[in-house]
Amino acid sequence: MESELIAYLRKRLPPHPLLKLGAGDDAAVLDMARQGDVVVTVDMLMDGVDFELARVDPRRVGHKSLAVNLSDLAAMASRPAAAVIALALPRRGGMELAKGLYEGLLPLAERYGVAIAGGDTNSWDGPLVVSITALGSLTPRGPLRRGGARVGDWIVVTGAFGGSILGSHLDFQPRVEEALALHEQFELHAGTDVSDGLSIDLAHIAEESGCGAVLDAAVIPIADAARRLAALRGDGSTPLDHALSDGEDFELILAVPPAEALRMLAKPPPGVPLTAIGRFVEQPGLWLADQDGDLLPFEPRGYQHEMD
Amino acid sequence: MESELIAYLRKRLPPHPLLKLGAGDDAAVLDMARQGDVVVTVDMLMDGVDFELARVDPRRVGHKSLAVNLSDLAAMASRPAAAVIALALPRRGGMELAKGLYEGLLPLAERYGVAIAGGDTNSWDGPLVVSITALGSLTPRGPLRRGGARVGDWIVVTGAFGGSILGSHLDFQPRVEEALALHEQFELHAGTDVSDGLSIDLAHIAEESGCGAVLDAAVIPIADAARRLAALRGDGSTPLDHALSDGEDFELILAVPPAEALRMLAKPPPGVPLTAIGRFVEQPGLWLADQDGDLLPFEPRGYQHEMD
Repeated sequence: MESELIAYLRKRLPPHPLLKLGAGDDAAVLDMARQGDVVVTVDMLMDGVDFELARVDPRRVGHKSLAVNLSDLAAMASRPAAAVIALALPRRGGMELAKGLYEGLLPLAERYGVAIAGGDTNSWDGPLVVSITALGSLTPRGPLRRGGARVGDWIVVTGAFGGSILGSHLDFQPRVEEALALHEQFELHAGTDVSDGLSIDLAHIAEESGCGAVLDAAVIPIADAARRLAALRGDGSTPLDHALSDGEDFELILAVPPAEALRMLAKPPPGVPLTAIGRFVEQPGLWLADQDGDLLPFEPRGYQHEMD
Repeated sequence: MESELIAYLRKRLPPHPLLKLGAGDDAAVLDMARQGDVVVTVDMLMDGVDFELARVDPRRVGHKSLAVNLSDLAAMASRPAAAVIALALPRRGGMELAKGLYEGLLPLAERYGVAIAGGDTNSWDGPLVVSITALGSLTPRGPLRRGGARVGDWIVVTGAFGGSILGSHLDFQPRVEEALALHEQFELHAGTDVSDGLSIDLAHIAEESGCGAVLDAAVIPIADAARRLAALRGDGSTPLDHALSDGEDFELILAVPPAEALRMLAKPPPGVPLTAIGRFVEQPGLWLADQDGDLLPFEPRGYQHEMD
């Protein structure tokens, strides 16, 4: 099976300037000599947790599996370079499934110049598991970290939030080019991507930076999907609740000095919707400013791994 | 859960000179500036396929999960540098299991100077899955490949073969130092590690090199475990059958020019048991020379991934 997949990939994969040795040996060799620092991240996605294979096209699963990794690279302002792909495939129909996954992720790899530097393809009696490790390089500005926000910095985000479960958690485009452009053109103090939820990922920046954060409830960009989900659920949760807590938006949260934020908002890079949604403050914790400007403590909510 | 594990790892992990940014950000940053080429490999291990969690200590599973990756680096004559670790943990007892896995793999990481550069820890209702990606650097001699064997080269192996299922497939030491020492001191034309089976992995070298290989049945080093397994099974399979086909020995197979092989066998690096077990020949395929020197075609056997 694995040799059949390798034969398929050898035909399907374009040559890549970084890839000195690809599939067919015990490991791949990447030319990273001019890269200096190497950024590395891994994400594992499981059927029934991160997607429902019975309901979605495997190509969307493949797309998401690589996209979440590229989003982590974007969060570091890192340029994608390569990825390796490990699969645990159900025995029945595994080969077709593997091809579907690759058909979904290869266009994304091509778009962002990611060399597919090998993988490990297995079959078993369990559900599909996809584990991708992505490598990236850094620009001369270095990595964008979580821990650099300063009191007074504005909180600037890309895109809109909430309701990703209705589909965008599978089909989103990682903010790779946006992160690189913003990091190059503006002074960013800190950044992350929204995987667990806007409020919880913002809280991570605040914690790592030793400060707190105030969110201005009235200006948080709410995705159409968040409104649709609130209406569908009818459980009293508002579109704003979904925007703050749903997660898997894979937008960027940035800490930007005020003067720089004004400049950025006045002239955003092409195609990058930006909104200032609050500021970092001395008081630790997360705070929500209501329409009257009153501050209410806000318990960050989002995706939490449950385990005994 | 994941934050608890990160806190545990931050205390447990020693600082590493290559690791500029570790756990706690969206990705890790490795200083690979002086490394040039980066070797990368991934292996995913699943409960019920690569180990039986109900029967073995999680520390042995953790050890194996990293060791198989280091064996792939060894097969390329690559010096281990870093690893990232993705886990799908059963919900019940997942945190204890995760710690057990790390307690098993960290001594190996320390021994070979591997920076643990982050991971992704998940829980689900399925069985344990461990996916590790390892990065390595190359010596000035470059990578050891599968495809470089030449007709006339001797087949030289480390260690002994067969019966790994009795325990050594969990507890083996990857031949990292041995591969680096041999690659530095001798001219090696090709190499691989034995994961699927001595005969099948040798066949891979022969195929990639465009030649065939003759094995001398009388001199193949047979592990004690292969003899015990043959006796236990009592199904007519001989210790030699097990040595040729069992797999997961994680020994090295090397293609070495004859004069160099003689020099190597006369003065092996300390602690490296070496045996010449045959030679590469023009006629494609795998051949077994019996005690009379007669050549019989041999169908390579070993672990095959089964899938519909």
